[in-house]
Amino acid sequence: MTPASAAPLSFTDAHAIDPRPHVLIVGGGFAGLAAARALADAPVRITLVDRTNHHLFQPLLYQVATAVLNPADISVPIRWLLRDQANATVIMAEVDAIDPDARRVSLDSGTVHVAFDYLVLAAGARHAYFGHPEWEAHAPGLKSLEDALEMRRRFLLSFEAAERTSAAGERDALLTFVIVGGGPTGVELAGMIPEVTRHALHREFRRIDPASARVLLLEGGPRILPAFPPSLSDRAQRDLEALGVTVRTNCTVTRVDADGVVANGERIPAHTVFWGAGNQGAPLAATLGVPLDRAGRVRVREDLSVPGHPHIFCAGDVATVTNPDGTPVPAVAPAANQMGALVGANIRRHLDGRATAPFRYWNKGDLATIGRHRAVARIAGRELTGFVAWLTWLFVHILYLVGIRNRVTVLVQWAFQYATFQRGVRLITGTTVHRLLRASRAAHERRRAA
Amino acid sequence: MTPASAAPLSFTDAHAIDPRPHVLIVGGGFAGLAAARALADAPVRITLVDRTNHHLFQPLLYQVATAVLNPADISVPIRWLLRDQANATVIMAEVDAIDPDARRVSLDSGTVHVAFDYLVLAAGARHAYFGHPEWEAHAPGLKSLEDALEMRRRFLLSFEAAERTSAAGERDALLTFVIVGGGPTGVELAGMIPEVTRHALHREFRRIDPASARVLLLEGGPRILPAFPPSLSDRAQRDLEALGVTVRTNCTVTRVDADGVVANGERIPAHTVFWGAGNQGAPLAATLGVPLDRAGRVRVREDLSVPGHPHIFCAGDVATVTNPDGTPVPAVAPAANQMGALVGANIRRHLDGRATAPFRYWNKGDLATIGRHRAVARIAGRELTGFVAWLTWLFVHILYLVGIRNRVTVLVQWAFQYATFQRGVRLITGTTVHRLLRASRAAHERRRAA
Repeated sequence: MTPASAAPLSFTDAHAIDPRPHVLIVGGGFAGLAAARALADAPVRITLVDRTNHHLFQPLLYQVATAVLNPADISVPIRWLLRDQANATVIMAEVDAIDPDARRVSLDSGTVHVAFDYLVLAAGARHAYFGHPEWEAHAPGLKSLEDALEMRRRFLLSFEAAERTSAAGERDALLTFVIVGGGPTGVELAGMIPEVTRHALHREFRRIDPASARVLLLEGGPRILPAFPPSLSDRAQRDLEALGVTVRTNCTVTRVDADGVVANGERIPAHTVFWGAGNQGAPLAATLGVPLDRAGRVRVREDLSVPGHPHIFCAGDVATVTNPDGTPVPAVAPAANQMGALVGANIRRHLDGRATAPFRYWNKGDLATIGRHRAVARIAGRELTGFVAWLTWLFVHILYLVGIRNRVTVLVQWAFQYATFQRGVRLITGTTVHRLLRASRAAHERRRAA
Repeated sequence: MTPASAAPLSFTDAHAIDPRPHVLIVGGGFAGLAAARALADAPVRITLVDRTNHHLFQPLLYQVATAVLNPADISVPIRWLLRDQANATVIMAEVDAIDPDARRVSLDSGTVHVAFDYLVLAAGARHAYFGHPEWEAHAPGLKSLEDALEMRRRFLLSFEAAERTSAAGERDALLTFVIVGGGPTGVELAGMIPEVTRHALHREFRRIDPASARVLLLEGGPRILPAFPPSLSDRAQRDLEALGVTVRTNCTVTRVDADGVVANGERIPAHTVFWGAGNQGAPLAATLGVPLDRAGRVRVREDLSVPGHPHIFCAGDVATVTNPDGTPVPAVAPAANQMGALVGANIRRHLDGRATAPFRYWNKGDLATIGRHRAVARIAGRELTGFVAWLTWLFVHILYLVGIRNRVTVLVQWAFQYATFQRGVRLITGTTVHRLLRASRAAHERRRAA
C-alpha cells in the first residue's frame, strides 16, 4: 500500500479495499512478533496492536531496574521490526475486550471496533499477588519498562532518603531490600543489589554505609529456582549467600504494607519490597468467555486455539500449555517464540484447509545469573555453574537481543560496569524525594508507636 | 567523616560536631558544581542540595527529546562527581525558600530548616511564556530530563496517532511541528525533526508518509540565532530551509492552545508545539527579597554576591550579569561554569578577609548544530559553517561531557545514527496513546466546528 497516494482509510475500515483475511495480533512481545513473522508471506492482512510502541526484551528487564541498562537498550520499536513486512500494519492502542462470536475487538475504551478473521491473543501476563491486589502498591513487580523504572526509582531513592534521616530505625528500614519470590527474576534481582551497595555507591555517602544494606530473598517453596535441578538451586543459594544475600526458603509472606512484610509471622521492616512471586494472564483473556486456569491464563487446545473458537489462538504467557509428560510449559521467552511461530503456521494451515499441528515445546535450557560473574544453567541436559555459566548467559542474551545497536550498547554498558563496578544508569526521574521521605517517615512513626 | 562509625547526626545538625563554616549550594548544575569544586581544599563544610540526583549536560538535552540519546547518556549522579571531595555532602531535596537574614533555607515544604554561613544560589532557570503560563501545558520547554521525555513522548506519539486517524485535517495537525523561538535550542530542535521524519521512520508506516510532516520555526525577532553574527544567522536559516524547515522571522505568537498556535494573526493547526522562546530565573530567587530583573533573575553585584547580603552569591542562569561593554552574559554552560568557579574563589577570599574579585566572562565561542552534519560557530572571532563547524561542535560536546562512560555511549549512539539514519531511543514511556488520541480528536472536532 502506497502511503499518502490517496486519502487513506482508517485502519478499522481497511477490509473495504483489501479482501485478504484479516489476522489481528494483540501484543508485540516474543509471541506476537513470532506470529506476525510466521505469516510474512501468507495471503493475509495483519494488524499488530500493542499498548506500547516497543518490543521489550524482558529477560534483561531486571538490569534496567538495577541501573545497569537503559530502557532503550532492551527495546526496539515494533514498527521498525516489521517495516519490511508489507502485509503488516502496527497500531499503538489498548485492546479493551474481545467479542469472539462477533469476531471483533474493541479499543480506546470501547469507542473503536476492529473486525478480524483470525485473532492471535499474545497479551502476556501481569504479576499476581496471591489474591492481595493491595500489595502491588508496596511491592512492584517487573513486567514492563514502567515497572522497571519504578523499581529503579525506589531502589536509588532509598539511599538518598537514608542519607538524610537521623533516626536509626528509619535508616535500617530504608536500607533493607526484600525480594519476594525465588524464581529467576527474584534471584537475578537479589544478586544485583549487593553489587550496587558494595561497589557502585562506594565513598559517595557521608552518613550511611551503603554496604551495610540487607538483601533478603524470600521463597515460599523448599528451594529457590524450583524449575531448575535441585543441585543448581543449592549452588544458586550458596552463590547468593556469598554475595551477602539472606535466602529464606519455606518462607510464607502473609502481609505486604508500607512498613515492610510479614513473613512466617515475623515482621521485617523494609522500605523497599520487590515482587517476583507470581504471574497471571492479561485481564483481556477473561473477556474471551472461555475457561481460564487459576492464574487467569487461557486453557488452549493442543494446536493453541481457544476451545470452541478455531479462529482464535493464544500464544505466550497468556496461554497455559502442558508438555506431554504433564509438566507445564514455562513462561519464558523461547516458549513464547515457539508458540507464536506455531500459531502463525496453524493459521496458514487453516487457510489452506489443512489440519493444524499440535504445540511441542523444545526446551533449549534454563539460565539464571547471580551477580557479577556467576550463573547457573542447564543446557542440553548439562549443568553449568560459576563463570562458565555466566559466559554462556552473556552470549545467549547478546545473541537474542534484537538489533545491532542494542547489542553494541549493552556490551558497552556491561564492559564499563565490569571494569569499573560503576552503574551507568543511576538516574532518578519522574518523582520527588519528598514524597518518598514522607512515606518513610510515616512508616517509621507507625513502627515506633507499635 | 566515617560513615556508620557512630550514630550519625542528621545533615541539618552537622554544625554541632563540625565547626567549619557551612557553605550551602542550591543546585547541582554547571554553576553549583563549579562552586563546590572551587572549594575542594577550603576549610569549609559544603552541602550541595539538588531536587534531582543528577548533574545534567543541558546542551544535549534536545537530543534526548528527539530520540537520539538516552537520558542517562547526558547525566551523572552528583554524588558520584563529588565522591572524593571529603568536605562535600550531597542531599537530594527541594529548597522551598531562603531566609537571607536568618541565614537559613527551608526544605520539604517548610518542614526542615538548614542554616548556612554562605549560600550559593545556582538554581537555574525555567521557561518563560511571555506572561502566559497557561501555554506551558500545550508547548513544553526543555530544561530538565522530564521536559525532554515529555517532548519525546509527544513527538513520537504524533506519528502513532496520525497512522490511526482517517480524518485528513486531524492527520495534518498531527504531522505539523511548531517550534517557538529561534535561539540555539529552537534551531537545534528544528534541525533534528526532518532527520526523523525523512529517514528514521522510513517505510514504517502504512497510512501516512512521515516525510510529509511540516516543521515550522517561529522567531519573534528579525533573525534566528540573534546572539550570533548576522552572517551565521543567515547561513543557519538557509541550512534549515535546505532540510525542509519553514523559518518565519518577525513572527509574533499571540496564542498557544490545544489546537496549535496563532502567529502574526494566522492560526496554524498543530498538535505538537515546542517552546524555546524564553527563560526566567528559578522561582526560589524571588524568596531572597531583593530586586530581580524582568526575567526573574537576581541582579547580583560585580562579585556575584546579592546586594545587601555579602554571604549570599548567585551563579548560573538564576543571575543576571552584564559585560563591561554593556551586553548581557549569555545563559550558557561556560558562563555558568565560570560564575560558579568565581563564587567559590570569592567565598575563600571572604573567609580570608580579602576583597572579592569581579566577574569577567570569557566567551569561548558560540555553537549551534543544524541537522545531520552542519553547524554554525564563532570561535575566537572566526566564523565556521557546514561540516567543519559540525566537527567542532561534536568535538567540543564530547570533550565537555562528564565521564568516560557517557563519552563512549554518546559516540556509539552518534556513530550508529550517522551510519544508519536510525534513532536509538525511539521509546514512548509513561503515557497511553489513548490520552493523546482523545486530545487530538477533540481538537479536530473544534476545528471542524469553527
